[in-house]
Amino acid sequence: MDDNKINQNSGFACPLPLTEYKNILLAHGGGGKLTHQLINEVFLSQFKNDLLSQLHDGAVFGIGNERCAFSTDSYVINPIFFPGGDIGSLAVNGTVNDLAMCGAKPLYLSNSFIIEEGLPVEDLWRVVLSMKNAADAAGVQLVTGDTKVVDRGKGDKLFINTSGIGIIPEGVQINPKQAKPGDRIILSGSIAEHGIAIMSVREGLEFETQIQSDCAPLNGLVDAMLAANKEIHVLRDPTRGGVASVLNEIAESAGVGISISEHLIPVSEQVRGACEILGFDPLYVANEGKLIAIVSADAAASVLEVMHNHPLGKKALIIGEVVADFKGMVVMKTRIGGRRVVDMLSGEQLPRIC
Amino acid sequence: MDDNKINQNSGFACPLPLTEYKNILLAHGGGGKLTHQLINEVFLSQFKNDLLSQLHDGAVFGIGNERCAFSTDSYVINPIFFPGGDIGSLAVNGTVNDLAMCGAKPLYLSNSFIIEEGLPVEDLWRVVLSMKNAADAAGVQLVTGDTKVVDRGKGDKLFINTSGIGIIPEGVQINPKQAKPGDRIILSGSIAEHGIAIMSVREGLEFETQIQSDCAPLNGLVDAMLAANKEIHVLRDPTRGGVASVLNEIAESAGVGISISEHLIPVSEQVRGACEILGFDPLYVANEGKLIAIVSADAAASVLEVMHNHPLGKKALIIGEVVADFKGMVVMKTRIGGRRVVDMLSGEQLPRIC
Repeated sequence: MDDNKINQNSGFACPLPLTEYKNILLAHGGGGKLTHQLINEVFLSQFKNDLLSQLHDGAVFGIGNERCAFSTDSYVINPIFFPGGDIGSLAVNGTVNDLAMCGAKPLYLSNSFIIEEGLPVEDLWRVVLSMKNAADAAGVQLVTGDTKVVDRGKGDKLFINTSGIGIIPEGVQINPKQAKPGDRIILSGSIAEHGIAIMSVREGLEFETQIQSDCAPLNGLVDAMLAANKEIHVLRDPTRGGVASVLNEIAESAGVGISISEHLIPVSEQVRGACEILGFDPLYVANEGKLIAIVSADAAASVLEVMHNHPLGKKALIIGEVVADFKGMVVMKTRIGGRRVVDMLSGEQLPRIC
Repeated sequence: MDDNKINQNSGFACPLPLTEYKNILLAHGGGGKLTHQLINEVFLSQFKNDLLSQLHDGAVFGIGNERCAFSTDSYVINPIFFPGGDIGSLAVNGTVNDLAMCGAKPLYLSNSFIIEEGLPVEDLWRVVLSMKNAADAAGVQLVTGDTKVVDRGKGDKLFINTSGIGIIPEGVQINPKQAKPGDRIILSGSIAEHGIAIMSVREGLEFETQIQSDCAPLNGLVDAMLAANKEIHVLRDPTRGGVASVLNEIAESAGVGISISEHLIPVSEQVRGACEILGFDPLYVANEGKLIAIVSADAAASVLEVMHNHPLGKKALIIGEVVADFKGMVVMKTRIGGRRVVDMLSGEQLPRIC
């Protein structure tokens, strides 16, 4: 690893210090500190503009008389078929969810395939059927696409990019910067199921009942929440980097503190067991069908009520609140009564989880 | 190859005949017959909807009071740096051009990186600078992005997806189905430069002066053409599969014949020489800064005039016309005075050219 660290006196030709590494590491894609460093120093330093700098799950801009959200994600998950889903349903739901987290109704998705030579056509067919089903379930259309094939050993079976466009209804104002002291933090259900489902398959762990990914489209749940109350300030789905990383991003971007209680955060017994075996903290493990909503204190009860009536929000609960102290930080009351800082994920925990 | 052919009696589990192959070949990404078979039998058979079935370079739909175009492309070009460009400028210009070919003014682009572990940060930095310059030159904003990292040997340095959104000005009606007998076929300049620039580097060919990719944004040229005359029926950029494949697609989708003259099609001497050495027909070689316009006979002169005044259309000329005979086919008058059918590319000619 040290060989990869940049020697500040080495005459490295880039005009910026960039990251502290000369070569890209897996951790640069992990959703934690190195990902943020890469995005800030390499991408944002050049691409900076008002829209990109929102650092939302998508960009929000006007087209004609409408406000649109536009989002993109490439999916490189390994394995491409897993308990509870596959790369196709993940690619549809992931982008649908990114749009929903901007408060948008997702409408149109693109799909772009990078296929490794030798992929069985039957596997591609299964993925395509799954994308079709996921698109129908989420109520979106797959409207444009692209197919590339790379030589054997230059890809890994299948990568899929989906980008998507949605429309933001009038009166909806969702943005990470809007978290305000006093706001309540709602979590829609138990965490870490997607990441642990993938890691269990990779590590060959066996349980009495198999842990399933929670991969699901969240736009229906968000519709119901916004219909109940427009005072939703922030929505995020805790994917790569998990609940801990998403809360850190919100705290940083809104310049507030976030206080959560460990004993309130739901983790299924099986997932907790797997986390112990694998050495993971569930707070950092990816979810693909859960959301965090930051809502005004007044709105919390009405939002929770509609969530409880939706299949994907039955177990929704308040896990903490936004505070004026600890600006930019996430602080957790632990089970044993102490307090600890929950930092952003550092290093690589779960490569290629989405 | 035969082992890969599907035995119709083998009990192959897919419900469709699909392609004639069991496993994906490089040629499925080549832009020719196998690509079309894959798209039609695997993707379109499931994803079919009115928008996708336009089979345009992008999907066209209304948002509020505007008509939008939406397009996606993943770039897997090898090598990532080449004479005349790099994967970054290609990724920006390629999607800008796809939108322009729908008659849209490109506005917003997403960028999604799939990076192989170990890529020098400096290489990524060069690509990012190049994307920034290309976006500025084309007048588009990069508004949302994603970064994934895959393990060493599971990718190839860098793949980039760009998706884009543009707005179609009032009165513009461009669509492959609109080619009508009597329409003139305009080509904006000499062909095959992108593909041959890439292949020359790969094969280590040396020429007196290096062949450069023609990679360029065509939206400015299209703006000028549409300002001069709205009677442009079809626009296409002949990328993968080259001029021959694009003309075949238009002939098929509009149900017309296309007649072109070999001696009119401009190929630089150096490119022609390289094609002979490498065994390529320039008609099938990719371009990244050329367009084909199919315009009404009345409009041809005014469109050509503005093209000649634009740096990317100086050498534009009429290479043939749309005819009522030979429905679905492209027929070429050869140099020696005969006629031959110009078929769609079959098999793989130039893998990973874009």
